[in-house]
Amino acid sequence: MNSLDRLRKFYLDSLEQGFSEPEWNRHPDELYAPQRYILGLGGKRIRPILALMAAEANGCDASIALSVAHSVERFHNFSLIHDDIMDKAKIRRGKKTVHENWDLNTGILSGDALLVMAYKSLSQSPDKYFSELLKSFNQTALEVCEGQQMDMSFEKIDNIEEGQYLHMIRNKTAVLLGCSLEMGSIISGGSKVVSRALYNFGVELGISFQIHDDILDAYGSTKTTGKNVGADILAKKKTLLWIHFSKNNPGKLDSIFDSQSIEIVQKILSEMELSGTFDYVQKRRRNHFDNAMKSLKEIEEVCEVSALRNFANWIFERKF
Amino acid sequence: MNSLDRLRKFYLDSLEQGFSEPEWNRHPDELYAPQRYILGLGGKRIRPILALMAAEANGCDASIALSVAHSVERFHNFSLIHDDIMDKAKIRRGKKTVHENWDLNTGILSGDALLVMAYKSLSQSPDKYFSELLKSFNQTALEVCEGQQMDMSFEKIDNIEEGQYLHMIRNKTAVLLGCSLEMGSIISGGSKVVSRALYNFGVELGISFQIHDDILDAYGSTKTTGKNVGADILAKKKTLLWIHFSKNNPGKLDSIFDSQSIEIVQKILSEMELSGTFDYVQKRRRNHFDNAMKSLKEIEEVCEVSALRNFANWIFERKF
Repeated sequence: MNSLDRLRKFYLDSLEQGFSEPEWNRHPDELYAPQRYILGLGGKRIRPILALMAAEANGCDASIALSVAHSVERFHNFSLIHDDIMDKAKIRRGKKTVHENWDLNTGILSGDALLVMAYKSLSQSPDKYFSELLKSFNQTALEVCEGQQMDMSFEKIDNIEEGQYLHMIRNKTAVLLGCSLEMGSIISGGSKVVSRALYNFGVELGISFQIHDDILDAYGSTKTTGKNVGADILAKKKTLLWIHFSKNNPGKLDSIFDSQSIEIVQKILSEMELSGTFDYVQKRRRNHFDNAMKSLKEIEEVCEVSALRNFANWIFERKF
Repeated sequence: MNSLDRLRKFYLDSLEQGFSEPEWNRHPDELYAPQRYILGLGGKRIRPILALMAAEANGCDASIALSVAHSVERFHNFSLIHDDIMDKAKIRRGKKTVHENWDLNTGILSGDALLVMAYKSLSQSPDKYFSELLKSFNQTALEVCEGQQMDMSFEKIDNIEEGQYLHMIRNKTAVLLGCSLEMGSIISGGSKVVSRALYNFGVELGISFQIHDDILDAYGSTKTTGKNVGADILAKKKTLLWIHFSKNNPGKLDSIFDSQSIEIVQKILSEMELSGTFDYVQKRRRNHFDNAMKSLKEIEEVCEVSALRNFANWIFERKF
């Protein structure tokens, strides 16, 4: 089994075991059932895997970083519960979102409790790392909220610059990947240089990952992504594809939408390819991926980075 | 100036000063403005004052507990933002609630960020107390969520027992008062015995405080409380008055409501007085206050508890 599958299994076994322990069986169950539900829905488990990989990169057993792995996955799922409310999303990973399966109040409150549970897991780390872990985690948690706020504000603004978009996805998505690695490194005794390089690796990989997500939404297949392809375009979401194309082809998107054709998405996708937007966005994705790899290279003499390199390649090549 | 007013001023000055510092001027402002708004709305500031008083009780300067004081007040205000959404409340301290002044999404997200800001303030405490502080805070934060969940669930249940009600208000309100004192004690080097006694003092005072709130809602005057007197009764809220009266006078409340009189509240209040419910509830309030005072007595030889005793008396006597 490769590192990726081995560590995912390790994380999932620990998650499963945790569900039968007192921590996850507090009362009232109405508060905890929605948390177990969303944590059990699946997903790629990128964040906990990165935390565990960072520990192994520092030559430690992955188990040393379990508190951190659970913390980042809990935080991520807290943000999903609340984001789904804000986005009025009904489906998450093929199942009903928490506020759909229960109700708005349950979504708000179980999300709040899951955020506390993320800190609770962090508090099970050795005392000597507390201060550093908490500072990294707090900073990241605020940035994620800031990213979500920007994302919502962008809906009401017409002209988003590429730089603003990159800043938004950095905060909303990428910093948590960086933080997962950084905390996994801190707790396994990594030096400041190593922990920071791993953080930068995660952030750059995260930006590349999010741009990839936008491309897959537009050009992927429903079969592999499990999403309605072109949904972002129909919702006029300001992804990098949209921003770049709009800037270089003023008025074009409006005129295609105005044409009320039944193949709006297909037309826009063709135009994006013809005009070079698709290539540009792919190039930007590659740039951030290359930056990530450079960060790994900086520490390859003191760390075992091969598993992280494979992981990054897997992320880069993914079709879903 | 007495301790209470002096420490409130000390806390408020620190709050005000903080608003002009980088921590409170992050971007995007849409995320931070609602947080500054609710923190600036006023209130009795019971929790931060208790944290500061605990430090002074241990013979330290109050400033030593400022990180903790800000943390508990931020947490309290996070819970107010989200509770107001869940309760569909429009007014808080005479001003619009956050979700009314902005919108639902802003309420959810700025509340989330304020919870993180509570942990951020905690992280400014000395490293050696981190572990203990975080454990106390996490446990309390979860219990507050559990209390809110119970409160919501009670709306759908007819027969709430007195014990269930006390458990709910303990979690929803009282433990945060206990935690404020406990953390103020921990950070000022208080022994485990002192910190726990102060915690118990806060919890018992908090239960007494909440029962008092219920009585004031029914029997207070709009002028002093700023609330619509009898609102709980009209909303058929299961306070201790309601629970005790219903149990001892089965069917009575329904028959008064069915009478469709224009003086339902007055009728119910008279019945509650005549039947002994009012006296019973006052007695319960006094019991918990006495328990609180007993906890203080346990540590009066090693701590300076007089300011806390005065504070408790002020809480007990309040008319608002």
